[in-house]
Formats: sequence, C-alpha cells, structure tokens
Amino acid sequence: MAIEQVLHMNGGMEDTSYARNSILQRKVISKTKPISEEAITNLYCNILPTTLTIADLGCSSGPNTLFAVSELIKVVQKLCQRLGHQGPEYQVFLNDLPGNDFNSIFKSLSGFQEELNKQVETRIGPCFFNGIPGSFYGRLFPSNSLHFVHSSSSLMWLSQVPEGLEGNKWNIYMASTSPPSVINAYQDQFQKDFSLFLKCRSEEMIAGGRMTLTFEGRKSEDPRSKECCYIWELLAMALKEMILEGMMEEEKLDSFNIPQYTPSPLEVKTQVEKEGSFDIDRLEVSEVNWNAYTDELNLTDAFKDFGYSVAKSMRVVTEPLLVNHFGEAIIDEIFSRYKVIVADHMEEEKSQFVNVVVSLTKRRTAVDLD
Amino acid sequence: MAIEQVLHMNGGMEDTSYARNSILQRKVISKTKPISEEAITNLYCNILPTTLTIADLGCSSGPNTLFAVSELIKVVQKLCQRLGHQGPEYQVFLNDLPGNDFNSIFKSLSGFQEELNKQVETRIGPCFFNGIPGSFYGRLFPSNSLHFVHSSSSLMWLSQVPEGLEGNKWNIYMASTSPPSVINAYQDQFQKDFSLFLKCRSEEMIAGGRMTLTFEGRKSEDPRSKECCYIWELLAMALKEMILEGMMEEEKLDSFNIPQYTPSPLEVKTQVEKEGSFDIDRLEVSEVNWNAYTDELNLTDAFKDFGYSVAKSMRVVTEPLLVNHFGEAIIDEIFSRYKVIVADHMEEEKSQFVNVVVSLTKRRTAVDLD
Repeated sequence: MAIEQVLHMNGGMEDTSYARNSILQRKVISKTKPISEEAITNLYCNILPTTLTIADLGCSSGPNTLFAVSELIKVVQKLCQRLGHQGPEYQVFLNDLPGNDFNSIFKSLSGFQEELNKQVETRIGPCFFNGIPGSFYGRLFPSNSLHFVHSSSSLMWLSQVPEGLEGNKWNIYMASTSPPSVINAYQDQFQKDFSLFLKCRSEEMIAGGRMTLTFEGRKSEDPRSKECCYIWELLAMALKEMILEGMMEEEKLDSFNIPQYTPSPLEVKTQVEKEGSFDIDRLEVSEVNWNAYTDELNLTDAFKDFGYSVAKSMRVVTEPLLVNHFGEAIIDEIFSRYKVIVADHMEEEKSQFVNVVVSLTKRRTAVDLD
Repeated sequence: MAIEQVLHMNGGMEDTSYARNSILQRKVISKTKPISEEAITNLYCNILPTTLTIADLGCSSGPNTLFAVSELIKVVQKLCQRLGHQGPEYQVFLNDLPGNDFNSIFKSLSGFQEELNKQVETRIGPCFFNGIPGSFYGRLFPSNSLHFVHSSSSLMWLSQVPEGLEGNKWNIYMASTSPPSVINAYQDQFQKDFSLFLKCRSEEMIAGGRMTLTFEGRKSEDPRSKECCYIWELLAMALKEMILEGMMEEEKLDSFNIPQYTPSPLEVKTQVEKEGSFDIDRLEVSEVNWNAYTDELNLTDAFKDFGYSVAKSMRVVTEPLLVNHFGEAIIDEIFSRYKVIVADHMEEEKSQFVNVVVSLTKRRTAVDLD
C-alpha cells in the first residue's frame, strides 16, 4: 500500500474532522514547549540569522498546524526585544503528505497573522508561509537551508506497512499475541525509516541547526508493551466482534496492519547515534491521558463520554486508512463498537499515551569547521 | 471589496473549471517561451547557483500551473548537459491567492515529476515544490532569496477595484463611453499596484536575478482601445439586456467593475523605469486569437462553437467575482447571453488578445558591487 496516497488526518471542519478532535496532539505540543523554546533560543543566539527558516513536519490541518510555529516565533520576538535586536524575517515551511488539507491552512493564514501580531508586544518581522507537500522520509528542502525543524505526533507513522506481517493473525498492530517475526518486521521498518529521516534532515539543515521531535512511544523496552499497543488491541477487538457476527471476512482483518511504530527513548537514541549527524541535547518522556479532556474544565456532556471522545480522536487519524481497507460503509459501525470497548477499559484502569521527545543539534562537519 | 478573498480561477476539474479551459493562457506561455528561455539561460550562466530558486506568481491550478516551470527546468538541464555540469537543486515556489486550489496542485506533483524525468535525458536534480498563498502586491519571500520570477496572464489583475468609478454607468470596465475620471482611476491603480509589485520583487530577488512578466495588454496608447476593452463591453451588453428585461437592477451593474488593467508596452516601461530596481532586457507584444482553439486541429463540435468556448474561457476567470456581486442564480443566464453576443461579434471581425511581455534584470546596487 502506498501510505503517502492514503494517510492523512480527516480534513474539513466536521464533527469527525481532525481540526475538531486534536486536543490530544495540542497537549503534546504544550508539554514539550519548554524543550522547543530552549532549542530555538540557543539556535537564535548562536546564529543570529537575518532570515530564520522553520519547518514543521507533519503539520496536519487545524488549530495545531500553526500552534507550535507561533510559539517559536513568540520566543524569538521576546528574545530580540530583550537583546535590542530587530526581529528576523521568518520563512515557515508547513509540511504534510499531499492528501492533507492545505487549502484550509492557507485560508486561515491572514487571520492567524493578525492574531499573532496582537499577542506580541513588538512588531513581528515579516512571516512568509509555505506549504510543502510530500513525505518526510524523503528530501523536502534544498541542502543547508533549514535552521529549525519541529515535528510533533507524526514520526510514529512509518513510510509503509512493514513487509512480513503475515503471521499477525487477529491483530492490527504489534500485540501480546504477535509472533517475534512481526515485532522484528516493525522494528526493522522503524529503524530504516527513522534513519532515512535523519539523513534527509541532516542534508537540509545547516550546521548547528536544531530539531525537536516528538513521537508517540513507550517507556518499556518491550515493543508489545500495553502502554503503546493496547489502544490498537481494543480496535482489533471491535473488528473481531464484527467478524464473529459475520459482518466482515477474517481475511480482511488479517491483511490489515497499522503503519506505526511507537519507540522507546533508547531506540530513538540508538538510531540517532548510529546515523551520526546529530548530537542529542535532550531525550525525555511525557504522558498524556487517553482522554485529553479529563483535565479540562467545563466539560460538555459529549466530552464527558470518555469512550466517545477517545474513539473519535482515534478515528480522525485512522479513518482514511480504515476506509481504504475496509470500505466506507462499515466505518460508523467500527467506531460505535470501539467507543464502547474503550469506555469499558477506561473504567477499569487509567491509561496514558507516552510521548518521547528528543532535541537534537546538527553536527558541524570537517567542511563546516574550515 | 477585498479582491484577495474573492478572486481565483474556477477550481476543480468540472466543465467550467479553469483547469479545463485555460488553453488561451497556455498559448501565451508558449509564445513567450523564447524570452523566458533566454532569461534563465543568462541567469544560470552568470550565477551558477547550487540551488536555483524559481517563483511562478499567479500559478492558478490546472495544466498550466507547472507548464512554465517545467520548461524552465528543461532549459537548465540541457544547458548543464552541454556544459558538463551537474544540475542544480531546484526550489520552486508556486504562488497564487489563498482561494486557489493548491490541494489539486499538490496531488498532481508526483505524476508531474515522473513525466518531467521522462522528458529530460539527464537525471534532473531534486525539485522541491512549495505552495505560497498570498497577493503578489505584497512581500511573499525573504529578502535576496529568489533567482528567477515568472508570471503569466496574472499581472493585469489589480489589487482592488479602483476607487472613484461612480461615473462608469452601464459599463463594467473602461469603455468607449467611460468618462476621463474612470480612465484616470484605473490608470492610477495600475501604476500604484505595478510599482508596488516591482518594489516587493526587488527586495526578494538577488542582484542579477531575472524576471519575465506577461500581461494581457494593448498596443494602442488609448486605455479605452477596443483591443483590450471590447470583450468586457460585450459582457456588459449581456448584463444590460438582463436589466432591460427586468431580471436585474441597474444599480447592480453600475456598482460592478472589473479589477483589471491592460497596459501598453510604454506604460509598462514607464513604471519599470520610475521604480528603478530593474533593467529592461526585452519588451515585446504578442497576439492570441480570442478563440485559442482556432489554430487547433481536430476540433470537436463544442470547440467549433467559438462563442461558447470564448464565453467559457472568460467565465472560468471571472465567475467568482460575478457570483460575489450578482449572486449564483443568474450566472448561467449571463454566460448563455454572453456566448451569443460574442459569437455574433466574432462573425463580424477577427479579434485578438494582446499580450505585453517584459523581461527584466534586477540591478546591482552599490552594496552588491562592494
């Protein structure tokens, strides 16, 4: 399957759009903000660029798209004010796969810039926004052209469903019952993909450039760990129910696997060191409740229905993949069952998504040091 | 009226989409190709960039979007082959107003790149495509970042409907019956807009950078000249008919004016010299038949209906403006009448659109010469 042609967050502004169901991903950005802030501060002070180029990889389409970038710009503006500098020009590259709804992003930009100007005391230098369609597992930018790269809740998506998953019967991801061959296939794909990602970015970034990446991941070294796999096992349960009730062929389930990998901090560290272009400044783990709304005040009744909101937050990121494989007709049924299964589980135990955050600096090579 | 929010070519792939009715604009690009080729050849040989940055301003969405850029890349690749150079990396910026259908462009890119690779004998260096939403009457790119700018059939669109057109009764553009105040208002707006365009580009382009611009224009020094205004007078006739038949209020027509200006070569030259950042390498005029299909072989019956195809080629560029002012409901009626009026006119005389082409080089300033 060509993931590039299929994978995208649900577009538009409907009830099941990513734009309206991405508070979880926003929380992840908020939690890792101090790390990004530290990175861009160091970058700015070391390089003092007249044009600061920032790329957000896997920007999606919705309120989160410009959230991380706006926080970065605000940090630089405050810094410039303190240092008595005129702010730089900003060139912002918003990247996602070609199926992403860039039209919506582009229409929102003028409102965004007005809002940003209101929030910052100083006059912000000109911001030039670019949409960059394409997979970040390939080159997206000219050599030596980027100062800062940010990517949040995107890099756990693999470039393809790993090959060799035939043994993964009744599962859709690595699960407690997956044979070792399946785990190896997933691990291999992650290592290949992440290593390629690092290589591409190392070519695109200037020496001393900074990059902060956030993955959905796990703390455990076991790839089958419940903390990262169980949410998919619950989705597989919904699909199994439908097979047992004759609504779907077993073969359909066996041939479907989610193209994700949720690495541990050690796995991230190992790949970065192996690839060799970047130094690790920070490597941390944070957690967010499955139901991101749990911490919010003024919950509406819909949000209080935890199963409903978790199922929906999973739906908006997986629907295009599921529709592609299972067809449009049974999607509502799948998620209506999933909602109930998730709610039952959440009553039994508190579940959290684990996020691995890594902050990197592009090494100077012998050529740069000349 | 905020033109930026309204003006765009008809999106999608329907019968009345710009994508399916833009052969006229393609002919203009083809006719001016030798001028663009000369410009990019000189640029490449003088600068030998490792990354060649090309911007297409007013790229629209359809088969023309990547046409000009692909021709430019092919020229550079052939040149590199002849010179024994490895080709540069290409960074291509596709710009249009935020209402343009960028999603369609982005989805077509992978097919386009395959096609381009087939057409060129040598291996093309990596091409990085960017979508840039925004008005070219403002800054779109960082300072000193562009090598080559191309814009075709876009710059006759003004940034706004000129102020002071109250006297333009029963007309929708400059017409034989327009009072001098209307002509002055249009001229002022063009001078302001084009001068601002040149200023913005001069900030964005490197010294020695090249720019080729094609406007719909006129040969005559009279802004009311039939060669540029008559096609709009015919559209006004259709609207007048509908008023006389009680289908529309006269006030509606009087308050509508097309935000275009079709300059003469001398007017273009005067503004370039006045602004002062660019030297003129070439300034030429070319002509294309109203019905671009006239020269094509294998005409289908629909294309043989000249009134139909001219009316449609006008519809795809003006529909959003007309819908915004007159409402959706009467659009079909307007163009059904327009078609008949255009066909009658074309039987009487052969009509051509005039295109003014100018090829410019960004001057080196005292700073650049240091």
